Amino acid sequence: MPDFTDSLRPAQPSGPESLAKERAGSPLAIDELSTHLLGRDGLLARQSKVLPILLSEPLFCKSTQQNLSRPERYKLGLARGKLLRRLADKHAWTPEEHETAEYLVDDVSPYMLHMGMFVTTIREQASEEQRAYWLPLIEGWKIIGAYAQTELGHGSNVRGLELQARYDVRTREFVLHSPTLTASKWWNGTLGRTANHAIVVAQLMLPDPDAKGIYISHGPHPFIVQVRDMKTHLPFEGIVIGDIGPKYGYASMDNAYMLFKNFRIPHSALLSRYSSVDSETGTYTKPKESAVVYGTLTFMRSKIIQHARLVLARAVTVAVRYTAVRRQFADRDGPSSGPELPVLDYPTVQIRILPLLATAFALHYTALAMQDTYTSTRKEIEAGNFESLAYMHSMSSGLKSLCTTLAADGIETCRRALGGHGFGGGSGLIQLNNDYLSKPTVEGDNWMITQQTAAYLVKKMSTAIEGAKKGARDEIDAQFERYLPQIRGASQGEYNVLERDEDLVRSFQHRATALAYNVYQARVVNKKPWKSLMIDFHKLSKAQSQSILVTKFYDALASNTDLPPTTCNIIWDVFRLFASYTLDTDRYEFFTCGAASREQLDALPARVNELMARIRPHAVPLVDAWKIPDYLLDSALGRYDGRVYEDLFNRAHRLNPLNRFTVNPNYWEDEIVKGAEAIEGIRAKL
Amino acid sequence: MPDFTDSLRPAQPSGPESLAKERAGSPLAIDELSTHLLGRDGLLARQSKVLPILLSEPLFCKSTQQNLSRPERYKLGLARGKLLRRLADKHAWTPEEHETAEYLVDDVSPYMLHMGMFVTTIREQASEEQRAYWLPLIEGWKIIGAYAQTELGHGSNVRGLELQARYDVRTREFVLHSPTLTASKWWNGTLGRTANHAIVVAQLMLPDPDAKGIYISHGPHPFIVQVRDMKTHLPFEGIVIGDIGPKYGYASMDNAYMLFKNFRIPHSALLSRYSSVDSETGTYTKPKESAVVYGTLTFMRSKIIQHARLVLARAVTVAVRYTAVRRQFADRDGPSSGPELPVLDYPTVQIRILPLLATAFALHYTALAMQDTYTSTRKEIEAGNFESLAYMHSMSSGLKSLCTTLAADGIETCRRALGGHGFGGGSGLIQLNNDYLSKPTVEGDNWMITQQTAAYLVKKMSTAIEGAKKGARDEIDAQFERYLPQIRGASQGEYNVLERDEDLVRSFQHRATALAYNVYQARVVNKKPWKSLMIDFHKLSKAQSQSILVTKFYDALASNTDLPPTTCNIIWDVFRLFASYTLDTDRYEFFTCGAASREQLDALPARVNELMARIRPHAVPLVDAWKIPDYLLDSALGRYDGRVYEDLFNRAHRLNPLNRFTVNPNYWEDEIVKGAEAIEGIRAKL
Repeated sequence: MPDFTDSLRPAQPSGPESLAKERAGSPLAIDELSTHLLGRDGLLARQSKVLPILLSEPLFCKSTQQNLSRPERYKLGLARGKLLRRLADKHAWTPEEHETAEYLVDDVSPYMLHMGMFVTTIREQASEEQRAYWLPLIEGWKIIGAYAQTELGHGSNVRGLELQARYDVRTREFVLHSPTLTASKWWNGTLGRTANHAIVVAQLMLPDPDAKGIYISHGPHPFIVQVRDMKTHLPFEGIVIGDIGPKYGYASMDNAYMLFKNFRIPHSALLSRYSSVDSETGTYTKPKESAVVYGTLTFMRSKIIQHARLVLARAVTVAVRYTAVRRQFADRDGPSSGPELPVLDYPTVQIRILPLLATAFALHYTALAMQDTYTSTRKEIEAGNFESLAYMHSMSSGLKSLCTTLAADGIETCRRALGGHGFGGGSGLIQLNNDYLSKPTVEGDNWMITQQTAAYLVKKMSTAIEGAKKGARDEIDAQFERYLPQIRGASQGEYNVLERDEDLVRSFQHRATALAYNVYQARVVNKKPWKSLMIDFHKLSKAQSQSILVTKFYDALASNTDLPPTTCNIIWDVFRLFASYTLDTDRYEFFTCGAASREQLDALPARVNELMARIRPHAVPLVDAWKIPDYLLDSALGRYDGRVYEDLFNRAHRLNPLNRFTVNPNYWEDEIVKGAEAIEGIRAKL
Repeated sequence: MPDFTDSLRPAQPSGPESLAKERAGSPLAIDELSTHLLGRDGLLARQSKVLPILLSEPLFCKSTQQNLSRPERYKLGLARGKLLRRLADKHAWTPEEHETAEYLVDDVSPYMLHMGMFVTTIREQASEEQRAYWLPLIEGWKIIGAYAQTELGHGSNVRGLELQARYDVRTREFVLHSPTLTASKWWNGTLGRTANHAIVVAQLMLPDPDAKGIYISHGPHPFIVQVRDMKTHLPFEGIVIGDIGPKYGYASMDNAYMLFKNFRIPHSALLSRYSSVDSETGTYTKPKESAVVYGTLTFMRSKIIQHARLVLARAVTVAVRYTAVRRQFADRDGPSSGPELPVLDYPTVQIRILPLLATAFALHYTALAMQDTYTSTRKEIEAGNFESLAYMHSMSSGLKSLCTTLAADGIETCRRALGGHGFGGGSGLIQLNNDYLSKPTVEGDNWMITQQTAAYLVKKMSTAIEGAKKGARDEIDAQFERYLPQIRGASQGEYNVLERDEDLVRSFQHRATALAYNVYQARVVNKKPWKSLMIDFHKLSKAQSQSILVTKFYDALASNTDLPPTTCNIIWDVFRLFASYTLDTDRYEFFTCGAASREQLDALPARVNELMARIRPHAVPLVDAWKIPDYLLDSALGRYDGRVYEDLFNRAHRLNPLNRFTVNPNYWEDEIVKGAEAIEGIRAKL
């Protein structure tokens, strides 16, 4: 039967026309900006290599996956994970190319922990002998492994873990045992259904040499344990494992619970690069400090922020393109019969999207600075010099907290700025939002870990004030030295944040230093209880992290050599918007600590509006430069070509399985699906 | 096979012990507070009547529904909707009891629009004759109807709708026609699969009496249209309808798209209570103003805020109970071997949850005030006096915006405060979050509609300043009269916001008035463009809405007669926390408009901490008072009895369908589910 909707077109002007006009209206050098942003680590090249291969495989098609049940999503994720590894073999992908493919397919892979924490832990914490045995099996995926640390009752406080690994000197075995229900491992990715091995973190219990029959805990240690039979894939007797059930996102990931009942593993299971147990006597050898771990953490955190930047760029790409296409209302002060305006022309839409566009750039430059610090200081580390790395490592907690919060909140802000269609499956932001919302919690809860950054700053402030300076000094020492005299003299900084870019940087550094000084006074001088200062610690960590974002953004532009001048000028405006908007949200704090004058702060909202108006004509090219492929966006609203309405209609009218059956709405009849299913059948599925 | 986990218990102290201690430690009169909050409109009584009936029906069991696919969720929703209506018949439920049952089952019902907008529109906009014909069919569910206004390309700007209803004088029919793809109806709940009738809003096109063959649009009008065959349930020829596909939430709701191709409906389809078309000549009769609609909107908005309050109370109930059970780290300044603290003892947890606990109360009293205004002024309205209603109606846009934003953001803040388990399916907040996130957009986008509140305030400010006062006056006139002299004299208000409750109210009223004055200056005096002031309008609307929330909360407590004194004193602290916390988040604004002194504002964070510490011991009883049943919470973390870990484990170990099959993780093998499913089968489901 011919379908009369086939011949219908959207009202004019069309999406493609609107976006073409946006692109023609800006002198921004998109490709040069892309290379500047993404050329360095080869992401663009990897994307070009991998994407056509993915597009040719029907298994990677995303168009109907939102309709699947949770068990189906997991199975699909497993099938895709297998296929990706086969393609990696076939095309001889590097690990980075394989990772790029996973990123584009955008499933949280059931193999994720195998490829990440499992192999990393073996590389970093296994002895040479253990590495020689396990790495070939792991790299060839002959075994699949997971990482089991968190427990049902214990997360951030790792020392509180309950699972025991008691050493039996007689049999030279460790005995894994879960004494309570809260000792159950929990949340451990890849382990619920997929893995046959796991790193298991347990309290190392060794015999007390002074008291027979008594065991002493030496704290949590990692063990490598085979947990499922290689043939049947069933857990061994004495182990209970399963998937914990549906979650906010991560539908394709099998997060696990796991309990042990006196399960025996060999002495060789303890990863023994840094600490070990004598197999005969059960005597413990304490861990040597590992400088490498110190650097690796900074590197991992820089990757989290790099990821946050791409996630935010993705949400902003959708938001900018769609709000440039979507029209609503004519200008109230304009001619009454004028065309409707693109909603991105409204300041109330701009204020939600454009500062986030700027934030993606800010995250970018800080992630790069962290990477650079790590790379350039590897040699220093080996010579025992940790100063710059120590600074960046200490700051990484606060940065992880701030950056993942900005990205997580930013996705949702973008989604709401899309209006009604932002609630629809065609936004492309739903799965992104659901998956990403794990990030403010995992790898250090965003509220809890800010204590670490604050503690470091308070320590540094004590040194600065108590005058015990010696040896090499890091960026915090320099910051405190510069701003402390003014702050202690309670005089206001003379910054022109409205007109001088470097004064924006100074204002942020001044304010962070002032907050550090206040917290130092409260904790060190006035001995206030730690708990009573936790909110202040959080504010301090946020202020210092914002200062780093602003500083690194400024430094990158000030030393830029590769961007064409016109494009560079636009990015300077993006910098100014990020700094001014961020400053605006905390005006009272800047004011009271003398980091900006009342007059300038009063003028700040107008300055933000002015910057948004200047950036507005370049918004579409600015998001184009991130080169997020349509395949990754999976968004009717954010398509590069602007065919928003055609795509939304296609998803609804042609791809939606709900439209393949007809229902019976009469409440007095049991039938639900005409000729097929009744209430009884529905109930049976629960 | 015996399962060794059956005998395991959580570590001590247990959840039940922790909550028992919390409840024993507070003198709050829970039941009296419940009655005070929920007794008035009978919610508690309805809950008690309906809940046991729901619990006895397996179809309403929620324990595995998160695993279902989207089509299965819709079918389940339909089956539940039928059963609820049967139970309503059987137990002779009132409409309110039926509604309470829907609320407890917590599906967005596929019958929702039938029970809501469809019947309401017929009641309000149909002629007597139309009502007599349609209402019996609707109330008996003999027909099922929906409400189709929003289009693919058109939402908030209703005048921009494209669907045409051209009147054919010859046949005395209207011809419904979608000229473009963007004219497709979109988002219309209940219509995608369920309804056979719909209110269809279309541009009324009538012949131009002066020019033959020309049609003139008289703007959007509602028509009642049968869209599907009563036997086959298939759409008629000339109509295309379907479900738009998966969304952020609302899995059980069939939101529709619908297009017409020259589809003819009779003259009687136009709902003609307020406007009509002469069937012979096609002459239009303009609508009479309807005072009832004016009041109904205020009433509907008060219901949105009442709902927001219960939604927030639900999220806060989960957050408070779980964080009172969950323990992590010992006090850093305490003895090193002390027990771990309940995380609710940490100020960084309190600052996220307790202000939201207070917000639920604030929303409550404003919703009641709106209801009261509506009720008490019905008589005035009939006499043509709209003053107090006009005030409340004008404020309702700003209140809808602020209150739904507070609730939507509040759910997510609570979810994150739960740490890792907040990301899990046992939080009970996932579906709540997903469903509720439609609210900031529907029934007036939260950013857009604040213009309406601001416009009213600017108009009132013009009157106040230009001195054209006459006749009856509303609360805004009184507010402006009180604060304007000070504001125009640029003198600071003498408020003691730290110690005097009524000064908190004054400070908020002062600040809202000052912002209104500034916006008046910008728009009326300095003639700034409307668009350039939209962000200021939004800030003004928010300030005035916050002022209303603070004022109504204060008024309710000041005139309270039913709460025992000890309990009332605790609620006064809750008021102080809401006002102080809200003030704290906008300190710069209060400072610069003279609504609070620098000295007091500097002391505010400490005041907030002090209030949180005072409320902390009553947190569990305070959420208990909202009496959210465990069935509605559907939360392992928020259970009344505190058996958090047992419930999480039960959901994972016994209820999770993912654990009913075993997989094959070897990437070189096609098998996915052992002995059952291979990659090819997975691909076929896409």
